[in-house]
Amino acid sequence: MGFKVLDDGGVATPVGFQAAGIVAGLKRSGAPDMALIHAAAPATVAGAFTTNAFAAAPVVHGQRIIAAGGSVRSVIVNSGNANACTGAQGDADAAAMAEQVAKQLGVAANEVLVSSTGRIGVPMPMDIILAGIDKAAAGLASGDAASAQVAEAIMTTDTRPKALAVELTVGGKTVRIGGMTKGAGMINPAMKLQPPQATMLAYVTTDAAVSREALDICLGQSLDQSFNRITVDGDTSTNDTFLALANGVAGNETLQPDSPDFPAFAEAFAFLVGRLAKEMVLDGEGVTRFVELNVTGAKDDGEARICAEAIANSALCKTAWFGADPNWGRVLCAAGYSGVAVNTKRVSLDYEGVPVVRGGMDAGTPEEEQVKAISQREFRIDLDLGVDAGAFTVWTCDLTYEYVKINADYHT
Amino acid sequence: MGFKVLDDGGVATPVGFQAAGIVAGLKRSGAPDMALIHAAAPATVAGAFTTNAFAAAPVVHGQRIIAAGGSVRSVIVNSGNANACTGAQGDADAAAMAEQVAKQLGVAANEVLVSSTGRIGVPMPMDIILAGIDKAAAGLASGDAASAQVAEAIMTTDTRPKALAVELTVGGKTVRIGGMTKGAGMINPAMKLQPPQATMLAYVTTDAAVSREALDICLGQSLDQSFNRITVDGDTSTNDTFLALANGVAGNETLQPDSPDFPAFAEAFAFLVGRLAKEMVLDGEGVTRFVELNVTGAKDDGEARICAEAIANSALCKTAWFGADPNWGRVLCAAGYSGVAVNTKRVSLDYEGVPVVRGGMDAGTPEEEQVKAISQREFRIDLDLGVDAGAFTVWTCDLTYEYVKINADYHT
Repeated sequence: MGFKVLDDGGVATPVGFQAAGIVAGLKRSGAPDMALIHAAAPATVAGAFTTNAFAAAPVVHGQRIIAAGGSVRSVIVNSGNANACTGAQGDADAAAMAEQVAKQLGVAANEVLVSSTGRIGVPMPMDIILAGIDKAAAGLASGDAASAQVAEAIMTTDTRPKALAVELTVGGKTVRIGGMTKGAGMINPAMKLQPPQATMLAYVTTDAAVSREALDICLGQSLDQSFNRITVDGDTSTNDTFLALANGVAGNETLQPDSPDFPAFAEAFAFLVGRLAKEMVLDGEGVTRFVELNVTGAKDDGEARICAEAIANSALCKTAWFGADPNWGRVLCAAGYSGVAVNTKRVSLDYEGVPVVRGGMDAGTPEEEQVKAISQREFRIDLDLGVDAGAFTVWTCDLTYEYVKINADYHT
Repeated sequence: MGFKVLDDGGVATPVGFQAAGIVAGLKRSGAPDMALIHAAAPATVAGAFTTNAFAAAPVVHGQRIIAAGGSVRSVIVNSGNANACTGAQGDADAAAMAEQVAKQLGVAANEVLVSSTGRIGVPMPMDIILAGIDKAAAGLASGDAASAQVAEAIMTTDTRPKALAVELTVGGKTVRIGGMTKGAGMINPAMKLQPPQATMLAYVTTDAAVSREALDICLGQSLDQSFNRITVDGDTSTNDTFLALANGVAGNETLQPDSPDFPAFAEAFAFLVGRLAKEMVLDGEGVTRFVELNVTGAKDDGEARICAEAIANSALCKTAWFGADPNWGRVLCAAGYSGVAVNTKRVSLDYEGVPVVRGGMDAGTPEEEQVKAISQREFRIDLDLGVDAGAFTVWTCDLTYEYVKINADYHT
């Protein structure tokens, strides 16, 4: 591992990045609800967004900026309102947010990206938003404290901020990569690189100089190994956004896809994003267990993915995991209705390496051993469909009382 | 409506049908767990079964008998064990159940259909099963009491038996149609006429004389308007079975698809099956609300169905319904990630006829009116995608604490 993990770091750890998390007043709870990230120098940017047909106004706004290919200076994020299904007014509001940031920070409006998360279909209270932007701009700072503060401000039903940084050497220069994310519910990202999908929000900053092409590769590869393989509830949001900004302040020779140090940089980038994605599942709404589900032996990788997602989103599998019920019939049942090719006489299943199914039938392992394997906070399920070499891994979680409570609490 | 509803009726109401529901001893609870239906005369049979790749042994056994096209005399059903993922022994056990019934009732083994429901992957305790069959055969009776008893014996997590009969005149003769069903969990039938899908189990008997072709039409049409449009949890079982038996004892001229009285018979048949399907959703695991979801304005009926099923199986929509939260953004969000064509500027949504979304945005109806609409035990949602004329209706339900409890209770 050619990099060092900075556990207290975040998006304001790389040199030349500042951040602020403040209370604008969008949330009844009075919790922080506005985040601002600012680059001291123009940053190369890569982005991935939701594929939901009802993509929110800030998503459409951001897709346009990313597609234009220019550099970016700032990202403004509000929680408490999604600015989705808000029509032309919503589009105007997203643009007005960018303009207000530009005015406060002396940058161009098309150098500002906007993210929103919260309730769908509610007009943005722009007086509160614009005043919040002024407050955030005044509060920009660098370092670990600012990184923690801004990671808290993007939270919705998350229970804890999720941030991290890594440090490595590139072309003889020390460079840092920082990141943060929020998740909790409506989590089944299906993002594509411009376009991609989540309301997960994720932001990565780095002071390395990275070309747009190289940054696109980092973002795309890490996406497929992280956010695009997680699911909390199978619901894909209207607002999912994953942005990476590279401001080049570290002074390394600009990384290109064929640079000798690019693989090491991409590895560190992917590690950071992977850990943030896993943290997102662990902090999903009401989650008590993290499940790594590996489907192998499928007809192809696409079928492995369909099968894995059917199991990961099965209410019966997820409630069984909550109860530490080894009921493997539910796993096979979900594989069976997923519509992919299955060799029912050759299927095998393991919980944490403990044989559960062999040849499509009970492997004879005593139930208490199976229960022990899945009673852990994190466990692994390996399902071999016995057809061919297709494989896919998803990271998922259980379905609990608490999930129902969080999402049905309107009248409680 | 050319028929009379017999609310206390069931599968033993039609003349020449007997039934028995007994305690074989498969369930720890000591509840009834074995059901037998017997026709006094050879019955024309139609059937639909699960499309799950792990179709249970009794499903495979039944598909073979239905495909052979002969008549049938008896149906044996056990709850408490699914006989799924049980290998060659499972196949032999299903056949042995048919043979035992045949021996007891003096019919041929290939005139006996078998159904099983319960836990997957557990070998059948054949000593208990075979003794139970003898007991059931000895207990056969006709009439309402037997109908109620047998409907109780097929239950798993159902809270109440679901049975019904109707009576009408066909070719100058009075004929009866009786039915029963069980559902509760793992309910997202996707059955096809030989093959079809659920663990829902449903049985219809009639003393009318009906040709195989006409009975297939009744079963197929009613399936598409009933079981194939319901979902409780999106999980499609390994054991779903829907059988219809017509013994002809009423003495009418055999109904053919072009008989003058066939439409009336088919209508009565469909009414009975539709009501059983609705009862199944209302008695789904932990269900507190029944939702009729009508998607219109889709590109075609297939896309309307995909969209309707995405909403009906969305954990976020289902928990919102539990909480009577009008949060319409979750409904649009699910439509948006379902992958179907949506005109986001023309979408409209109504709760019980109350406008909620117009032109893709909030319709301005006060929230308390929306809450009132969805606080009922049964309510209707109408979503118009604004694209074309495709339409589909699903019957679904909320997701509650009780659902989680029922399915995670292994260690509680």
